[in-house]
Amino acid sequence: MPVWFMRQAGRSLPEYRQLRSGGAPMMEVCFDSDSVVEITLQPVRRHGVDAAILFSDITVPLRAAGVDVDIVNEVGPVVQRPVRCRSDVDAMTPPNPLSLTAISDAVHSLTGELGDVPLIGFAGAPFTLATYLIEGGASRHFERTKAMMLGDPDAWSALMWWLAEVTITFLRVQVDAGVDAIQVFDSWSGALSLNDYRRYALPYTTHVFASLSDAGVPMTHFGVGTTQLLSAMSDALGNAAEPVLGVDWRTSMVDAASRARPGTVLQGNLDPVALLAGLPVAEQAVRAVISEGRRAVQAGAAGHIFNLGHGVLPATDPGILTEVVNLVHSL
Amino acid sequence: MPVWFMRQAGRSLPEYRQLRSGGAPMMEVCFDSDSVVEITLQPVRRHGVDAAILFSDITVPLRAAGVDVDIVNEVGPVVQRPVRCRSDVDAMTPPNPLSLTAISDAVHSLTGELGDVPLIGFAGAPFTLATYLIEGGASRHFERTKAMMLGDPDAWSALMWWLAEVTITFLRVQVDAGVDAIQVFDSWSGALSLNDYRRYALPYTTHVFASLSDAGVPMTHFGVGTTQLLSAMSDALGNAAEPVLGVDWRTSMVDAASRARPGTVLQGNLDPVALLAGLPVAEQAVRAVISEGRRAVQAGAAGHIFNLGHGVLPATDPGILTEVVNLVHSL
Repeated sequence: MPVWFMRQAGRSLPEYRQLRSGGAPMMEVCFDSDSVVEITLQPVRRHGVDAAILFSDITVPLRAAGVDVDIVNEVGPVVQRPVRCRSDVDAMTPPNPLSLTAISDAVHSLTGELGDVPLIGFAGAPFTLATYLIEGGASRHFERTKAMMLGDPDAWSALMWWLAEVTITFLRVQVDAGVDAIQVFDSWSGALSLNDYRRYALPYTTHVFASLSDAGVPMTHFGVGTTQLLSAMSDALGNAAEPVLGVDWRTSMVDAASRARPGTVLQGNLDPVALLAGLPVAEQAVRAVISEGRRAVQAGAAGHIFNLGHGVLPATDPGILTEVVNLVHSL
Repeated sequence: MPVWFMRQAGRSLPEYRQLRSGGAPMMEVCFDSDSVVEITLQPVRRHGVDAAILFSDITVPLRAAGVDVDIVNEVGPVVQRPVRCRSDVDAMTPPNPLSLTAISDAVHSLTGELGDVPLIGFAGAPFTLATYLIEGGASRHFERTKAMMLGDPDAWSALMWWLAEVTITFLRVQVDAGVDAIQVFDSWSGALSLNDYRRYALPYTTHVFASLSDAGVPMTHFGVGTTQLLSAMSDALGNAAEPVLGVDWRTSMVDAASRARPGTVLQGNLDPVALLAGLPVAEQAVRAVISEGRRAVQAGAAGHIFNLGHGVLPATDPGILTEVVNLVHSL
């Protein structure tokens, strides 16, 4: 069974921490193609995972579209001038593929270096990007985001169409440069009810996937805490050639199979915290996910890609990740 | 339709902030019966809600059982010596109802002051209390909690039985003093999959409700982000005289009705963030919840109590809360 890990590149790896010890800001690293190539390759070399995922950040396409956003250590994204009204949205400029040359260069090099190992391209979904733009950074309750969403539908809709174009441009650059698959992260959509998701997020994400469907590559859609949204998130994939639904650890794979459209592959869903509790606990949890995945396939899922139900936590022992890869391959 | 708000007492009210401006620590306030009475009454006076909920804190019964826990401003609960292994658990002392005299005094006074307005008693569920004890405070990923839960089942089980006794003692004191209903908050159970919830949390919460069922009062069970757990959380209520399932804003009331046991009343589920987006947005959201509630009753729910889908946010304009009460009463 194939296995890779969300956030497999990054802070869990000593070789990554060494590379970053020079102190270059995260955003600079994301626009330096040599660094992107090296960081993307590190977990493939170390763990023998079955896919690489382009090392980047959810805010990279915003920066490329002229937004004054930075990634601050221990804080996350910080947007200098948050978007709060329609005129803020109207001042946004169209995304320019040329500002993403470093990303396409990195993808070109990676497809050569990786040989048969597929490279997954990556973007945030419009709703999640909107939360950063409107809140000015990370948020707990998304107060301002929902205030605009519910109270100023014109500004919301204009912002979301702009973000859809930004996301499409970012993904198109990656597809044109040769990625073998894409994954769209709607990290914060779990803060929405199904009704609000359908009205305020789904149309824009659907447009993103539809605009990329001609690429013919597998497309994955993932969010955290999205039990209530899974059927709609599966709908968003539309007529993707090979639709994949990412499942967080809270939802059982069998439950996810019952919510996904026919023909959808499931990806997930080991609780990343189980990897912090020692190898015996991790192994038992891996076996449970695999057996749940088998039941999900019996229940109609088109396949199972082993992954975590959220990103690798920075405190994870990389040795345990390697053991998990070996275990999954042996089962 | 009846309406009250989780966290209706507290920081959203100027009269509460004035009472607290003297600087008395939160834990002291929770053990001062005059303060508890006054703070509990404030939202009833101001908003005309249909129920009072005892002002307290989830950690109060831990303190009463001898745990060195404090509530630190802007931080939350801080446990001096977190529980990490079986011997830590074995060192815990049994809860003593006499250490809760301030609580029973407050309940006695309140039942007199409130007249016909019912008073709801309150406790945290064992799982949520365990997270504070094991992590030493609030947590994002519950790493240590899950490490003990998955890796040291003996210690986990011993701790959870002790916490169940602590919770039962806390609720029994309130019931004996005259509360008209109880609500158990399992605030963090949404971090668990259904399988883990059934194995590691449900038996203890079920024991809590079963031990109180002889009181014959309505009992409510609530958690945040618990779409995947609702049927099990409904099961936990067992043969409660009047079982009530609290629904967070992510799950639709109709979906909740399909997951709850027959005979269960639903409580919820306005997104508290909708109250920060101005009165027109709030009113529209209230109407949507009420119409969803009606559909839930048609789908089999035994009734609908209007509430938020999580606690009142401190930044909420209390004038809007009063308007919501009036609107709910008018519909």
